[in-house]
Amino acid sequence: MIYKRVALIGLGLIASSMAHAMRAQGLAGEIVGYAKSPETRAVAKELFCDRVTATAAEAVTGADLVVLAVPVGAMGAIAEEIAPHLAPGATVTDVGSVKQSVVDAVAPHIPAGVHFIPGHPLAGTEYSGPRSGFATLFQNRWWLLTPAPGVDGAALDRLRSLLTGMGANVDEMDVEHHDLVLAVVSHTPHLIAYTMVGVADHMRRVSSQEVIKYSASGFRDFTRIAASDPTMWRDVFLTNKDAVLDILGRFAEELFVLQRAIRMGDGEHLHAYFTRTRAIRRGIIEAGQDTAAPDFGRAATPPKEA
Amino acid sequence: MIYKRVALIGLGLIASSMAHAMRAQGLAGEIVGYAKSPETRAVAKELFCDRVTATAAEAVTGADLVVLAVPVGAMGAIAEEIAPHLAPGATVTDVGSVKQSVVDAVAPHIPAGVHFIPGHPLAGTEYSGPRSGFATLFQNRWWLLTPAPGVDGAALDRLRSLLTGMGANVDEMDVEHHDLVLAVVSHTPHLIAYTMVGVADHMRRVSSQEVIKYSASGFRDFTRIAASDPTMWRDVFLTNKDAVLDILGRFAEELFVLQRAIRMGDGEHLHAYFTRTRAIRRGIIEAGQDTAAPDFGRAATPPKEA
Repeated sequence: MIYKRVALIGLGLIASSMAHAMRAQGLAGEIVGYAKSPETRAVAKELFCDRVTATAAEAVTGADLVVLAVPVGAMGAIAEEIAPHLAPGATVTDVGSVKQSVVDAVAPHIPAGVHFIPGHPLAGTEYSGPRSGFATLFQNRWWLLTPAPGVDGAALDRLRSLLTGMGANVDEMDVEHHDLVLAVVSHTPHLIAYTMVGVADHMRRVSSQEVIKYSASGFRDFTRIAASDPTMWRDVFLTNKDAVLDILGRFAEELFVLQRAIRMGDGEHLHAYFTRTRAIRRGIIEAGQDTAAPDFGRAATPPKEA
Repeated sequence: MIYKRVALIGLGLIASSMAHAMRAQGLAGEIVGYAKSPETRAVAKELFCDRVTATAAEAVTGADLVVLAVPVGAMGAIAEEIAPHLAPGATVTDVGSVKQSVVDAVAPHIPAGVHFIPGHPLAGTEYSGPRSGFATLFQNRWWLLTPAPGVDGAALDRLRSLLTGMGANVDEMDVEHHDLVLAVVSHTPHLIAYTMVGVADHMRRVSSQEVIKYSASGFRDFTRIAASDPTMWRDVFLTNKDAVLDILGRFAEELFVLQRAIRMGDGEHLHAYFTRTRAIRRGIIEAGQDTAAPDFGRAATPPKEA
């Protein structure tokens, strides 16, 4: 057991997966949950929480680890609400996809003697809500921490033990760099996927029935990305605005160069570009972050939902 | 057995998968192969062809089905070369991702009494070459045919039997509509994925090591798409230019609207947009074209290559 009492604030995909993983590995003595919706709390009580509470303040009382797992835009208000109830020596972490705005919103509320260690698990599915969690979500996935300089070393080590205990690989980086890296590997790709799915949805000469039927050749991967939780992603784009707009600008430039090559019939340019992008892919497979199985490791017919 | 002798012209992923599937199901009496490269022919002879030939003309001699499985840009020259050697009553089909340019390049060479039925299997992996094929590639995938009006009904039925025998679902549509639909569900998504991977590759403040490590959150799906065969995709963009440029124009407009919403902090617009895109995704899962398994049905660690 690494923490005696863990309080989960927000009970969606990430929090419910953490609860399942902590139970499976015996990492927490008691798991207490809070969510705004009574229905969500009831599901959490049934599936993975020892106890749920009607307020966030109650949930964090006596907890030695508090996990903020609400959308990034809601972090500040919840931090203000729980701050007076945090136990001395407790650790507060979060699982938000953007770190600077969470630090700005949460850190001012954290009392002296409580350790705030911002975090971000790079793991997810297209599903959300308290029924979507499962114990192996973090297995072999990265969990990034962005601790402030001078953070308590023992508190940091203890949190790292919890995360690796749930199967994650832990890395540390500074807040600003985190937000730029994520804008590249996650936020901008998501926006682009949303956009492409939106374009398909607006076409009149191609029916959505056709789009759905023939999705296997590329579009399918975009729809999977574009099915993620709308509230979470709205908050990501609003709070990591500068980095996302920077990468989007570069993307538009690059796209226009390829678009021009198509218009001009410049096959050499296209071939050279497409050859370069293969190398990155090989690196990802070698790094163990994807499978090389035929048809992307997917069954031809969908299995039952887990 | 549906055809006595099948000639495969070009011996990459699609042709080798066809050979494996035809063998597994006993659909062809003899499978003859031709590829430009002697190395490729040697691999094909070893793995899936009864016989390989040093010229395309030899391969098609006496065949009752000829499959053109070379890049779209090479179809015209090969059709011209084989035309004098085609057996009366034979069927010629192709597997190109673009249909209008193939029809324009191939149809003029087809002699009277030979049936030309253009086709396109919506199936693939990120791998290419004669070693990449496997018998189940077409299982539950669409195979689109774009026969000219007045095509021989018996020849069409016979080809359909071969394709369904390999596990594919067959649909017919007209040539122009095919190219527009594919621009939406496949060609433009591929170009966008190539672009995003290129942007990541050019960043100076984010190392390619970081991009590779943290790819799991969205970017990974782009790299998979962007690892496809460069020659094939160059030809797709050069030959389906008009439809791709049309969809790219719509995509850029749509992206700019979302970009502006981010800049202006318009959370309502973003949330409404992201909510709409979820519906298409649900449709794709219901249509059996993807799995709903957690983490997209992928193992956390890569299995051995098949």
